[in-house]
This record gives sequence, structure tokens and C-alpha cells, in this order.
Amino acid sequence: MNIKINENFSLIKENYLFSDVAKRVNEFSKANGGRNIIKMGIGDVTLPLSSVVVSALAQASVEMGKAETFRGYPPEYGYDFLREAIKRHYLERGVVLRMDEIFVSDGAKSDIGNIVDILGKNDILIPDPVYPVYSDSNLMSGNKISFVKGCGENGFLPSPVGVEEKPYVIYMCSPNNPTGATYDRRGLKEWVDFALATGSLIVFDSAYEYFISDDKPHSIFEIDGARDCAIEICSLSKTAGFTGTRCGWTVIPEELSAGETKLIKLWQRRQATKFNGVSYPVQRAAEAALSTEGLAACREQIAYYRKNAAMISAVLSEKGVYFTGGVNSPYVWLKCPNGMGSWEFFDHLLKNARIVGTPGEGFGEMGKGYFRLTAFSSYENTLAAVERLRKIL
Amino acid sequence: MNIKINENFSLIKENYLFSDVAKRVNEFSKANGGRNIIKMGIGDVTLPLSSVVVSALAQASVEMGKAETFRGYPPEYGYDFLREAIKRHYLERGVVLRMDEIFVSDGAKSDIGNIVDILGKNDILIPDPVYPVYSDSNLMSGNKISFVKGCGENGFLPSPVGVEEKPYVIYMCSPNNPTGATYDRRGLKEWVDFALATGSLIVFDSAYEYFISDDKPHSIFEIDGARDCAIEICSLSKTAGFTGTRCGWTVIPEELSAGETKLIKLWQRRQATKFNGVSYPVQRAAEAALSTEGLAACREQIAYYRKNAAMISAVLSEKGVYFTGGVNSPYVWLKCPNGMGSWEFFDHLLKNARIVGTPGEGFGEMGKGYFRLTAFSSYENTLAAVERLRKIL
Repeated sequence: MNIKINENFSLIKENYLFSDVAKRVNEFSKANGGRNIIKMGIGDVTLPLSSVVVSALAQASVEMGKAETFRGYPPEYGYDFLREAIKRHYLERGVVLRMDEIFVSDGAKSDIGNIVDILGKNDILIPDPVYPVYSDSNLMSGNKISFVKGCGENGFLPSPVGVEEKPYVIYMCSPNNPTGATYDRRGLKEWVDFALATGSLIVFDSAYEYFISDDKPHSIFEIDGARDCAIEICSLSKTAGFTGTRCGWTVIPEELSAGETKLIKLWQRRQATKFNGVSYPVQRAAEAALSTEGLAACREQIAYYRKNAAMISAVLSEKGVYFTGGVNSPYVWLKCPNGMGSWEFFDHLLKNARIVGTPGEGFGEMGKGYFRLTAFSSYENTLAAVERLRKIL
Repeated sequence: MNIKINENFSLIKENYLFSDVAKRVNEFSKANGGRNIIKMGIGDVTLPLSSVVVSALAQASVEMGKAETFRGYPPEYGYDFLREAIKRHYLERGVVLRMDEIFVSDGAKSDIGNIVDILGKNDILIPDPVYPVYSDSNLMSGNKISFVKGCGENGFLPSPVGVEEKPYVIYMCSPNNPTGATYDRRGLKEWVDFALATGSLIVFDSAYEYFISDDKPHSIFEIDGARDCAIEICSLSKTAGFTGTRCGWTVIPEELSAGETKLIKLWQRRQATKFNGVSYPVQRAAEAALSTEGLAACREQIAYYRKNAAMISAVLSEKGVYFTGGVNSPYVWLKCPNGMGSWEFFDHLLKNARIVGTPGEGFGEMGKGYFRLTAFSSYENTLAAVERLRKIL
């Protein structure tokens, strides 16, 4: 064919991280037997959907089979019943949203990728290490990316101090994937102030908000001024175990505008043109997840993962290993002991403790020499893993 | 904010078509009472999901609630069980696909919009009249659009004869929305030959394929050479009443490449970066819809709509009104009688027959003076509407 393709796609490096991990684990298993290997590399939930969510899904399925209750095309921005539930969820944090500022989606990843559609060529500011979708989706659009560096000195919570003062699209993820580090009010305020001073837009990914157990903000909109500079993208994947069910949302405050143009109008147009709404049964499931009973079940599941995270954190503290996360996050991000590299520690851990984790360098340059363990294994496996870590660290 | 937005969004005209229709209907109802108004403007299915689909949805919901059968992140390109079912569906048309050429999505609209991501700046060729998403998604990306004109002379099936010979991205929709006109093998072959001769890419929207009742092709891949020049985007929305359930797919043949780059690789990368797969229960529902029992139910539902379409077509034939569609499509596209304009006929029909339809000019310049009626009403309402049409035409 003689058509032109998007040449920016060639800028994206193939990420072989998880296939490399799988390959090394396979080779090890072949040579040494695969028994007793504990997988702490996964970033996916493992507990099943709560019964209130399952009932809602099944009930909505039955509705779709009856003429009186069948539903055709959903509203492109989400059913009001779900937008109401999301609005209430924010209200419990003291955040007041208008219904039309809430856009239901099939998950945070789609919205993070698609939000680039409504923006022009901007300078992009992304923390390192972080979820690779922020940079990949911007590389695809030919945008110029700068990184703000997370490291031991700032506890993997980089601040805007020292960043050149100009307008950026700033991506933030708090609690962070992969470091689990979570900004407090002051830390977020610094970024909001920076955005307001420079005319920047913050794209705030709050997918892990429900893991927060202390008084840190769950939403960027808990910070004064955020409505004038921030979009928030959230998901039920980690809150309610929806990774396989697929539902999330994006909040675009009415105030946000660039020149004469309101961002909310652009996103309305984008979604009305390139998206046809979320499956009705899934929206009913999401509504159930955000009900009083549903959220109680979410808290129970998250308490289970959090207990795992606390056990991992405890052994690292005991052994004097530097780490972030483990408190407000299912992730524990540790500095590889004895100056080992990420992959070196991966092999060390696999060989000597039969534990699989994720080398930190898969999440950015600043991840070199770091390592991610996750709390999504069972309690029993996590307990066993902790005992093994105690012996080899 | 000082960030730059995508200025191309300003090129897209607000489409007030359906809100204008609603407004006129409201005004009429207020003045004359709303009794007995028959809505034949809707492009959405009305029959509920078949029992085999509902069972699959409900069963998968239960699976998601048990630890042993819970599923987390779905594969980004779709579960193999569904891709197998889609592969079999094509095989029944004599079309052989590889599993990795099939990408499951949340609907054709998303893929039609998102496919633009992987392409560069190309000349775009779009039939007029047609589904507005093709042009809107390209306007958003700043692409230059030419139209090929459908009209009474070509039966709203424009051919490439007379089109300047250069590489385009060519959008096709057969059976067409809104005209219902459906290309035969020869008509599609002309376009495939044009695409091969010019190095063009065809984006073929086959969302209405299951309405085809004669020997016309259901898939562009039934045409020799199509694997070297075409992508196909399809959906279960109209086939199985999935407008509210949301599932579709895109087929990208392995052969397609621009220079050294395979399009399938670009789409894999796009979907892996900006999409996280389709809800597991929805994929099970789609698998059920494509089973032997599921497809039998689809045929039954489509026969119902097709009967409505045939009744509408019959009265138009009887009255000597020119129309397309009505056979392989839920749409009947008619020339407004007595030289009336689209909106003039809309008012005429509402006032004198209490029937609501859609003015053709909402689908493009060439729709002026034409009008769309749909077969998605009940049999009883369609019967009543036909009697009224008989009186006023």
C-alpha cells in the first residue's frame, strides 16, 4: 500500500519486561522444577467480584433478555444511575462534582490513552518510574516528553521544584504504580500551584485511591485550585476487582479551558464520536460496587491485600531494606540489596527464594536497581514468601 | 490554561439532527397531542437479547464471583474462545482468517474512530451519504476528505469510476447506513481493484452484514485481493441486538503493510497501549451469539425486522416512490415525493401520518431531498404506519 502510517509508532520501544520475566521463570522451572514458586510480580487482582456486584451483573443480564427492560445504546457519557453513584463517592471525600463532569468509560487505560486526542502538541511532564501508558500514548502522538525523577531522596514523590516554568501536560499517579508512594496534601498542593502558575494541565490517575488508609488525598480535587488545572481518571479495577469487568471514569471540571474552548466540550465531542458507551450490565455492576454494601465488600478485599503488603513491608523494615509503598498501595518498591541491579536481584530472588517479582527498570530509568513486589498473592503464599525473604535478605 | 488543544475539533459541525427531530416532535405533540405517533427514526434495535446470550452473560457473571473461575485483565486482543467463534463465523462465508488477525473490541464505533491513530496524514475518501463517524474522526485528525457521491443514478452505490487515481484511505459501509444499499460482488471488486491499483486502504464497515438475505457479500474478504488492501470492522450491535451490550471486532490481514511496516503490528501496539480488552461476561455473551443456537436466534430477530422493512418497501413500490434498502437492511431510504426537501417531508409526515423519520440531509449533502425510515419498530406499529403512508403518499 502507498498510504502513510503514523511514524511515531516507531518511537515506542517494544516492552519485553513481562515476557522476559516469563522466559526466565520458564528456564528456571525447567532446570530446577517449578514447585513452590511464588508469583509476586502480578499487577492484577485475584479475589473474585463481591456477591452484590455479581447479583447486579446477573440481574442486568436478565433485564436485557426481556422486552420491557431491554436497553439499547447506552448514553455515551454513562447512565445517570452510575454517574450519581460516582458523584456520591466523591462527595464522601468532600468533593462536589456536577453530573456532566463525570464520563463513564471501559477503564482508565482507555481514557489515559484517548485524552491525548483532545490536546494539541504540548510539552509533557511524566514522573519516572511510572505506568508506561502515559509516555507511550504521548510518543504515539509525537509529543515531547520530559521526566521528573523519583528516587530515594524524594521518596519517589518528585516535586516541581527545579522544573522549568512553562505549560505542560503533567501526568501524576498517586498512589503510584509501581512505587506505591502516595502524595500527601502538601505534595499535591505544590503540583497544583505549579500547574496554576504555569498554565499547565494535570492528568491525575487515581486508580489506586481506595488503597489509601491514612489521611492522604484520594482525589486531586481535594486540593484547592485543582478544578482550574486538573482532570482525574479513575477506575474500579483495583477498588472493586474490575480488571476483567472493565469500568472506569474521567472527571473534567467545567472550569477547565484553553483559550475560549472548554475541555469538557472537547471530551464530550471525542466520546460522542469515537465511543459508544459502556455495557449496561457492567454499568449496573459498577453502581453496585459503589453502593454502601458494595464499598464495604471493597474495603474487605483491600484489607486482605493490605495485610499482605504489610507483611512484606515488615520483613523489609526488619532487614533494613529501603522501600516505598506497602501502606497505601498493593505495591512494595524496594531498593535491591547489596547494590544489585534489578535483573540481578530478580535472578537472586528466583534462585534462592523461588519468588518472582518485577525488575524496577521496566518502569523507567529511575527504576534501575529497584524491584516491585505485589500484594495480590494469597495470604498463605505471601506468608511463605515473607519467611523466605527473611532468610535470604 | 496555556496548553494547546486539538484545533481540528473546531472543524466538526455540531450535529443537531436528532435533537432537532426531538424538538419538532415535542412541539407537534404539545400542539396536537402525542397519541399514536409512530417512531421510525430510531437506528437502535428494540428486541431483547436471545435467551442463549442472556444465559451466557449470567453464567459468566457467576463465574466472576468465584475464586476458581474469576478472571482478571482480559487479553487485550480478545479471548481465544471468542476469536475462535468469529473465525468460524467468517469460515461459513468461505473467508479464512488467522486468529491473530482478529481483534475483539467494545464496538465498531470505537474501532472506526481509533483506527485513525495508526495512520498518517492521508487523503480520505468517504461515500456521501453515510454514517458521520468516518468523516468526523478524520476531521479530528486534520485529514483531507473527498466524497464519492451516492445518488439515484448509481442507486446510492458509488463506484470508483472518475475518482482521481492516488492512494486514499477509503471508507465503505455495505449494507449502507443510512441508505440500506448493498454492493454486489462486482461492485465491491471494482473498489478492491481501485485500491490495489492506487495503493489505497479500504476500511470496510460490515456492521449490517447479517441483514443480507441474497447472495451479496457479507465481508470484503469474500473478494479476491481484499486481503492486500482492506481492514474490516464489524459489530454484534445489529446482528445480535448488542447495542447496549457492546461487542465488535476488527480484522487486519497479516499481508497489509505500508513500506516495511505491517498494519497488524501497529494495531496490536495501539490496542495494547490504549485499550485493556472487553469485559469477560460480554465476551462470553458474544461467543454465545455466534454459536449455532445464538445465530439461529439472530436470524429470527432479523427476520422480524426484515418483515417490517419489506412492508415499508411494498407501500413505496406501490406508490411509485424511489427508494433503496429495505431488503438487506433495516433501513429504507426514500426520495421525498413531489420534490419536497428532507425537513419539509419530515413535517408533512409528522402532521399527516404521525410518523417520525430521519431527514436524509443529516447524513451528508447527497441526502438532501431524501428520508430514512427504519424497521426497528414493532410489527404492529409498522403495519399501522404502512396504512397511514398508503393514504398520504
